Amino acid sequence: MRATYMYGAGDVRIADVGDPALEQPTDALVRVVLACICGSDLHPYHSLVATPAGVPMGHEFIGVVEEVGGEVSTLRAGDLVIAPFAWSDGTCEFCREGLHTSCRTGGFFAAGGVGGGQAEAIRVPQADGTLVKVPVAEDSALLPSLLTLSDVFGTGYHAAVRAGVNPRTTVTVIGDGAVGLMAVLSARRLGAERIILMGRHKARTDLGLEFGATDVVAERGEEGVARVRELTGGDGSHAVLEAVGYRAAYDQALGVVRPGGVISRVGVPQYADAPIGFPSLFGRNITLTGGPAPVRAYIETLLPAVLDGEVEPGKVFDRTVSLEGVPAGYRAMDDRKVLKVLVRP
Amino acid sequence: MRATYMYGAGDVRIADVGDPALEQPTDALVRVVLACICGSDLHPYHSLVATPAGVPMGHEFIGVVEEVGGEVSTLRAGDLVIAPFAWSDGTCEFCREGLHTSCRTGGFFAAGGVGGGQAEAIRVPQADGTLVKVPVAEDSALLPSLLTLSDVFGTGYHAAVRAGVNPRTTVTVIGDGAVGLMAVLSARRLGAERIILMGRHKARTDLGLEFGATDVVAERGEEGVARVRELTGGDGSHAVLEAVGYRAAYDQALGVVRPGGVISRVGVPQYADAPIGFPSLFGRNITLTGGPAPVRAYIETLLPAVLDGEVEPGKVFDRTVSLEGVPAGYRAMDDRKVLKVLVRP
Repeated sequence: MRATYMYGAGDVRIADVGDPALEQPTDALVRVVLACICGSDLHPYHSLVATPAGVPMGHEFIGVVEEVGGEVSTLRAGDLVIAPFAWSDGTCEFCREGLHTSCRTGGFFAAGGVGGGQAEAIRVPQADGTLVKVPVAEDSALLPSLLTLSDVFGTGYHAAVRAGVNPRTTVTVIGDGAVGLMAVLSARRLGAERIILMGRHKARTDLGLEFGATDVVAERGEEGVARVRELTGGDGSHAVLEAVGYRAAYDQALGVVRPGGVISRVGVPQYADAPIGFPSLFGRNITLTGGPAPVRAYIETLLPAVLDGEVEPGKVFDRTVSLEGVPAGYRAMDDRKVLKVLVRP
Repeated sequence: MRATYMYGAGDVRIADVGDPALEQPTDALVRVVLACICGSDLHPYHSLVATPAGVPMGHEFIGVVEEVGGEVSTLRAGDLVIAPFAWSDGTCEFCREGLHTSCRTGGFFAAGGVGGGQAEAIRVPQADGTLVKVPVAEDSALLPSLLTLSDVFGTGYHAAVRAGVNPRTTVTVIGDGAVGLMAVLSARRLGAERIILMGRHKARTDLGLEFGATDVVAERGEEGVARVRELTGGDGSHAVLEAVGYRAAYDQALGVVRPGGVISRVGVPQYADAPIGFPSLFGRNITLTGGPAPVRAYIETLLPAVLDGEVEPGKVFDRTVSLEGVPAGYRAMDDRKVLKVLVRP
């Protein structure tokens, strides 16, 4: 089959590789119907150390089950399924607590011997725990929106849930990428009435306004912080949803958060140390939370609104490519010409 | 009157200074009946830059109201009152949310022109919002326990509340100082059934066991982390209450916290930057919270158990001095010969 591999920074190619096969009785084989490129795929795109073997890419996909292992009991060939970006058994203590990303027997797609979703097919470990069957046809127009439940919608939702967003919280979202926009949509669904979106790409922030943002702040750094403070009566925002991952975004979050407020990070941090002492977090009782979203925990919660068409998170996709178009898709996303690329293998 | 001043690191003296007087109509003058020395007073004791004028010391006291300003309506001369370590109006948005340490018109004792509690008398700004009248006599045996509501009991409680401690959470408390021991007592009151106390001073950890700790880990660093992990089935602790403030304690907290867990800091951080990236906080969805405790918010909650004698937090005091004995009290606490010093001016 054909699959996307990255061989070093900026070097994405489609490779002919062996077809995946069942390895464990808890596995399923899935033919990929829709996949996509993630903002977090751009991090290795900038920094991956070159190797001849490369690494498989993609952790978001919807597909059709082709074959299941002997211990898989809830799925069968022909089922259309959503895969969260982390696979998990669904039964361990962490899964039962809704922290599927820390599953005792789980892991992540495109890592540790498990293939990536930007491919024709993929082996899914712990299929019963991982995959969620959806009651639509393979050619449904809902598929792009359903695909966002693989990662970005659940990730934006995680940011908002962890920040305790509710009708009384003022929310500031840092970043107008797909996750930032999904954080806006999620904050709105959780009842927030004031949602400030910090971003400077008009097409994206316009979509943010459509998803529920009430204000857009295009300025960055100190100027952006001053603008958000102005919009919040000088105090800053109860909940700051940080959907970027760069250190500058963390600093911006410190600047716009209200005393007693929460910074909830879902952008994968591209830094190790940062200020958490008295002047930054401690003195104002700021809470810092977030992490890789256990999106599996949120699929059932978010699915009805997507199936009903009440929300259309699939609007974040503004380009569609075949597998051959994936390398160009990475370039377009990296050049910020495109918000998020849909892949139809 | 006589009052405690610190003139530089290690240089604590009792000075003859002018008597405090009402300055604002919202002030009260309080004769100090009981004060004490705080673990956080040891930070300037180690590092204060020498000045001829010195700085007033002490932020925990119980006293008798001697005079009130014209706008004070809830207090009168003769009332026995507890002062939280931060003064606050009790009416602003932050106070109403229970974050009195961020009061719009508030501040801290022994700072910004307001005197310290290790003195014969003190001016209390925003007296109506700040002081809590207690229905006991000046010579009541309950006074030391009531005094802990000024800071350490409320601070330990803040750590536990912010960490979301409940009957299902395993708790690890880092630090066997007065705040750490109050964090143990607070975690127990919030229903925690497994409370691991990390500390190596036997007299203190014995008191911790009396307050509700179920396990004591005397080892520190990697060895201590390994021991806590062993006690928690390898996973670590849901809630880690960090009551020290040094960087090593934060690192220890990272080591013992469970995926999805909370590190709640109430030890004033003596560092600025620290790890918060993928391997430390983010990857495991760890929440970092805490800050200066709005102890005013907790006094009414904790007061009944103290008045009933259901808890005896005053057991943390293991030496009593007069005002003249305060400098020796600092030395004894700094040498760790004494846990917490009570001052009877």
